[in-house]
Amino acid sequence: MSSRVEQILSWYESDNPGVLKNLHWMMNTGNLAGTGTFVILPVDQGFEHGPARSFAKNPAGYDPLYHFELAVAAGCNAYAAPLGFIEAGARTFAGRMPLILKLNNSDSLYNSKNPLPALTGSVKEALRLGCAGIGFTIYPGSSLRNGMYEQLRALAEEAKQAGLVVVVWSYPRGEGLSKQGETAMDVAAYAAQIAAQLGAHIIKVKPPMEHLEQEAAKKVYESEKIAIGTLSERVRHVVQSAFGGRRIVIFSGGEAKGTEEVLKEIQGIADGGGFGSILGRNAFQRPKADAIKLLAQIQDIYRKAK
Amino acid sequence: MSSRVEQILSWYESDNPGVLKNLHWMMNTGNLAGTGTFVILPVDQGFEHGPARSFAKNPAGYDPLYHFELAVAAGCNAYAAPLGFIEAGARTFAGRMPLILKLNNSDSLYNSKNPLPALTGSVKEALRLGCAGIGFTIYPGSSLRNGMYEQLRALAEEAKQAGLVVVVWSYPRGEGLSKQGETAMDVAAYAAQIAAQLGAHIIKVKPPMEHLEQEAAKKVYESEKIAIGTLSERVRHVVQSAFGGRRIVIFSGGEAKGTEEVLKEIQGIADGGGFGSILGRNAFQRPKADAIKLLAQIQDIYRKAK
Amino acid sequence: MSSRVEQILSWYESDNPGVLKNLHWMMNTGNLAGTGTFVILPVDQGFEHGPARSFAKNPAGYDPLYHFELAVAAGCNAYAAPLGFIEAGARTFAGRMPLILKLNNSDSLYNSKNPLPALTGSVKEALRLGCAGIGFTIYPGSSLRNGMYEQLRALAEEAKQAGLVVVVWSYPRGEGLSKQGETAMDVAAYAAQIAAQLGAHIIKVKPPMEHLEQEAAKKVYESEKIAIGTLSERVRHVVQSAFGGRRIVIFSGGEAKGTEEVLKEIQGIADGGGFGSILGRNAFQRPKADAIKLLAQIQDIYRKAK
Amino acid sequence: MSSRVEQILSWYESDNPGVLKNLHWMMNTGNLAGTGTFVILPVDQGFEHGPARSFAKNPAGYDPLYHFELAVAAGCNAYAAPLGFIEAGARTFAGRMPLILKLNNSDSLYNSKNPLPALTGSVKEALRLGCAGIGFTIYPGSSLRNGMYEQLRALAEEAKQAGLVVVVWSYPRGEGLSKQGETAMDVAAYAAQIAAQLGAHIIKVKPPMEHLEQEAAKKVYESEKIAIGTLSERVRHVVQSAFGGRRIVIFSGGEAKGTEEVLKEIQGIADGGGFGSILGRNAFQRPKADAIKLLAQIQDIYRKAK
Amino acid sequence: MSSRVEQILSWYESDNPGVLKNLHWMMNTGNLAGTGTFVILPVDQGFEHGPARSFAKNPAGYDPLYHFELAVAAGCNAYAAPLGFIEAGARTFAGRMPLILKLNNSDSLYNSKNPLPALTGSVKEALRLGCAGIGFTIYPGSSLRNGMYEQLRALAEEAKQAGLVVVVWSYPRGEGLSKQGETAMDVAAYAAQIAAQLGAHIIKVKPPMEHLEQEAAKKVYESEKIAIGTLSERVRHVVQSAFGGRRIVIFSGGEAKGTEEVLKEIQGIADGGGFGSILGRNAFQRPKADAIKLLAQIQDIYRKAK
Repeated sequence: MSSRVEQILSWYESDNPGVLKNLHWMMNTGNLAGTGTFVILPVDQGFEHGPARSFAKNPAGYDPLYHFELAVAAGCNAYAAPLGFIEAGARTFAGRMPLILKLNNSDSLYNSKNPLPALTGSVKEALRLGCAGIGFTIYPGSSLRNGMYEQLRALAEEAKQAGLVVVVWSYPRGEGLSKQGETAMDVAAYAAQIAAQLGAHIIKVKPPMEHLEQEAAKKVYESEKIAIGTLSERVRHVVQSAFGGRRIVIFSGGEAKGTEEVLKEIQGIADGGGFGSILGRNAFQRPKADAIKLLAQIQDIYRKAK
Repeated sequence: MSSRVEQILSWYESDNPGVLKNLHWMMNTGNLAGTGTFVILPVDQGFEHGPARSFAKNPAGYDPLYHFELAVAAGCNAYAAPLGFIEAGARTFAGRMPLILKLNNSDSLYNSKNPLPALTGSVKEALRLGCAGIGFTIYPGSSLRNGMYEQLRALAEEAKQAGLVVVVWSYPRGEGLSKQGETAMDVAAYAAQIAAQLGAHIIKVKPPMEHLEQEAAKKVYESEKIAIGTLSERVRHVVQSAFGGRRIVIFSGGEAKGTEEVLKEIQGIADGGGFGSILGRNAFQRPKADAIKLLAQIQDIYRKAK
Repeated sequence: MSSRVEQILSWYESDNPGVLKNLHWMMNTGNLAGTGTFVILPVDQGFEHGPARSFAKNPAGYDPLYHFELAVAAGCNAYAAPLGFIEAGARTFAGRMPLILKLNNSDSLYNSKNPLPALTGSVKEALRLGCAGIGFTIYPGSSLRNGMYEQLRALAEEAKQAGLVVVVWSYPRGEGLSKQGETAMDVAAYAAQIAAQLGAHIIKVKPPMEHLEQEAAKKVYESEKIAIGTLSERVRHVVQSAFGGRRIVIFSGGEAKGTEEVLKEIQGIADGGGFGSILGRNAFQRPKADAIKLLAQIQDIYRKAK
Repeated sequence: MSSRVEQILSWYESDNPGVLKNLHWMMNTGNLAGTGTFVILPVDQGFEHGPARSFAKNPAGYDPLYHFELAVAAGCNAYAAPLGFIEAGARTFAGRMPLILKLNNSDSLYNSKNPLPALTGSVKEALRLGCAGIGFTIYPGSSLRNGMYEQLRALAEEAKQAGLVVVVWSYPRGEGLSKQGETAMDVAAYAAQIAAQLGAHIIKVKPPMEHLEQEAAKKVYESEKIAIGTLSERVRHVVQSAFGGRRIVIFSGGEAKGTEEVLKEIQGIADGGGFGSILGRNAFQRPKADAIKLLAQIQDIYRKAK
Repeated sequence: MSSRVEQILSWYESDNPGVLKNLHWMMNTGNLAGTGTFVILPVDQGFEHGPARSFAKNPAGYDPLYHFELAVAAGCNAYAAPLGFIEAGARTFAGRMPLILKLNNSDSLYNSKNPLPALTGSVKEALRLGCAGIGFTIYPGSSLRNGMYEQLRALAEEAKQAGLVVVVWSYPRGEGLSKQGETAMDVAAYAAQIAAQLGAHIIKVKPPMEHLEQEAAKKVYESEKIAIGTLSERVRHVVQSAFGGRRIVIFSGGEAKGTEEVLKEIQGIADGGGFGSILGRNAFQRPKADAIKLLAQIQDIYRKAK
């Protein structure tokens, strides 16, 4: 076991050997094995945005087995998806890739100002399907946030007892925030802190922008001269906000975009001490070979950054 | 076991032998035994629309035993109904026909913009009554959809543990959609995807129309030139949207109509790779002999299409 | 066992011997023993309308033991009341009369457009008190109907496992209906169907009026020429709507009225194939001797009708 | 055991020996032992109105032990209080006085038109603390009354199984009633009936006024010429409304007032056949010696009335 | 064991030895061991106000281990924090400091007039992490207060069974109160009473102001001439309001301020018989050495006051 992996595991000092085993499995899988960095493939867009918007561009992706294959071929650390997608390939790929069962999801056929996803899986299902962890989305800023925090709390307690890693998608959204505020610096740092306090092992946030949303926070950023001018600085501050760097924080890729743009962003994340990326549409909406190539380039950046 | 049945069963790789046994039973019952296609008789209209609107046309249908007899005589794959109707004949017909206990229903004495059916049965009741599966309706597009998804999730988990097949009626409806949107192409495909992600074994949707409801989806249908001009093309796209064809998707018959009209629609479904039909009013509102004849013609179409 | 009782029991083919024993007990109790018809004494008006409105006219009725005595003396098939009233005499009258514990009730100190009764008893209490069955009210037409259906579903499942008979008061009421609609022909038939589908063994409805409430239903009543001109015809249609006559349907007496009026209505119910009556105020608000006499006349009508 | 105590116990014929033991304990404690009448000390005003409003007048009352001592010294039948107050002295006074754990309470820092108290204790806590019974407040007339009835139902079922006496504070209040209606004759009688039907062993109501609140009730009071002109007549009618006198009904003292006024009211209650009083502020807001003297005078009235 | 500690433990006469052991541990830890007074370090501001507002001033505080170290080095009686912060150091510091797991928290990304914190921990988690107690916030004055009281009731019951100390943050807030009312004398005393009645072992309130919020209370404060002119008098009244001094009441420090100001306030609390302080921002936002020095000065005041 590399000393970096050992170091990271040491931060999770209250967790049982079951959780550490699965965290260890993720950090020793794929092209980034042993580096303590992550590239994870998440595919919940079929549920979140609908099948055509997600898979029509690369129709191989309609088939759930495609994503298992892609995650394995591209040397990812883990593959995350909702119940149906995991069920469809969990036996075929059993043991070949750490799986993360996404336990809540929102569809787009009804939208509300204060989103609250539906529970779509359970810890028991994650265990039945041989998963290494569970995934859960919270929307800080929503009037319904507390319901999500409480669901997460209960699921995390159950998951940890069962030795599963808890991965939290912390996505600020809802009436408490302006549109710009959803990716604001202060809000992103706060979102990471909330996920960490709720007991997340791995925290997924969006790369933050320079905007500061909350007046009371803004004053402190200015008076304390917190550096947030570059993406790297902002990533560094988010990582610091997750227990002074003692929690794994990874960054989402967002909407599909060009290769160059993606790589530039990844470089910024890596330079700021981000632990890795979790990319969906930028991976599975490309032809398989292109996706594998892009993910290899990304992995390269993270490998070198460490 | 026909290789087609074997192939279909292979898609449900995470399910236990109990579920496969019941799925196998359905696929080896009636006139379509061994073909991997389905004609199912559902009779929940007494609850949904009231007794007179459902049964006055063919008063034999007031008696719950009539529908068991019809399903057997017409060589259907299964018979689905709410608790009371199943209780009334489950002992007499025990073992003669796979039964699906419908676990939620809406009556028409109160209507709301955002429907949420009542739970009217349970997995335990389905087991007590010797059923092969459970049925559950979700209304994507309703502001209350998440409640349904979460009920389904919990019931499906319990049903699968007990070896029961999970059949989901995925009927878009509610404030999130226009009237036309309820049968829109993009919405129907999305509804099938949601049901599949929630872990359905068999998905029932309405035959989709050419209309595209959501702007973000419409762009993709146009840019990716997804063929949706004919019913067959639309059915093919719905089946693709249910995990690239790896889930059984069947189509409802809707309001009672003339024989010719029905058969034309069935042909379209069969040509598009639909797995079968689930017909209520078009079956039990006809005299018994006529219903048997019509169902035989429909079965013929599916048998030939394969 | 009379063949009529045997026949009726045969309809409940999915029920366990415990339920059949209690149903058998009811049908072999009192003056109508062996006929398969029913006169039941229900006394929940103290809770529903208040003590003075219920008992001041015949103050003996303030005492809960009075009603047990009346039910026994008048040869009723069963006595139904809420928890407190049953607790007060269940030991004294243990074994002498089938008791039905009414599990939900509404008081009149607060009224709402969409009523939802309070749970006031439980299956466990019914067993502790030696009851033969449970009673439960649903209000189809209320915006809160689904809550009632779901409570009934769960209680009925529990009661049936424990061998208790499930008696459902199906009283249309609430925002979904006009005042006239509460006793409309189509609505009464629908209410009986809903109770039957929810698994009721015995269904209590109000004698329906000729009015038709729902447009979609009205069309069918007219096109199919369903006879609803006389009370007997309407009762016959309600009985048909409860699984083609395979469920026991009994009719409430409503507000206290003159003897002649009561007997005329009972004759109509009996002629239409109704299974009996459930009379409260028309029984306990008369002096005891008068009540016994009236109930004897009613029993006479049902005995002759069969 | 006095024959009066025996008689009262006989009314609770469905209760187990555990409940009877505790009821017996209350009726054989203090100065009224053996008479079947009651003077109970309740102290929940600290929670309901705040500490200064409750205890500043007689600051000894800030200390929870004071009230145990007062109840013992004054020869009360029982002492009732919320969790914290009972916890503070339950060991010191174990066995010396029947304790009633008040299971719900409302504070006055937020007020709403339709009150719903918070659950502040449990049956399990009552058992842990050696209590003889539980206390519970319902507010008939509140839009939220059903929630209270259902909590009471469940707690009463649990308490009776554990052998605890169920004491119900039935206080009409909320949007369904006018201010005057809260103590109206018809409403008080109805409140007593509701508590009895919900299974209360001991019912606490306020002394009713002559006002009649509900039109439908008023008609009956007038046509049946129910006597309600004096407090004694009104108390008699309330006791009658609680199962024809087969349930213990006691009356609250209300706001603190002069000795003469209190004694006059008690005389009226005793003359009307009330089973006793439950006095808080009129007891603990006086100096201890005065309180003991007043309670002795009250006990004297009840002793003589029997 | 000092006689003062013994005396304090004697007030908790209904608690089991497990609770007394943990209370004893807190009172025998740190610089105030044996005095029966308290200085506790609470750090939930990361969740409540966000990471930058909490930790940017002294960035060592981003790291959860820093606070454990500070609490130990400064000789505090206990350290309180939410799940994530406790998990991060509970193994390293096991046994070195009594830990209090804060079980509910509110973040500031969404604000509502009537706050209701999210549950963020559980009794089971507190036990897993070796904690000595649980912490819980209630907001008397919020329309949602009853939900908090009921959560606290259930958690306190569970915690006491498990031998954990129950610490309640009683912070008046919400629509029932004016802004000034949140720290009003009558309201603070009432808040302490509510927490005590709900079964708290240790009650945390804010130092009260002279303002009187509620009309009915004001009358009593004036007629009974309750002394509230100085902070010491107000503290004394709060302590009296918590069961006549039979419950531990400690006072929060509030916003960060100058050393002199802090010490003056502490002197007032100590003079009034307050049991101690619970200081967060005034401790961890100073450099470590400064914080230790300040806390030593505070401890000195409490030691001398006793």
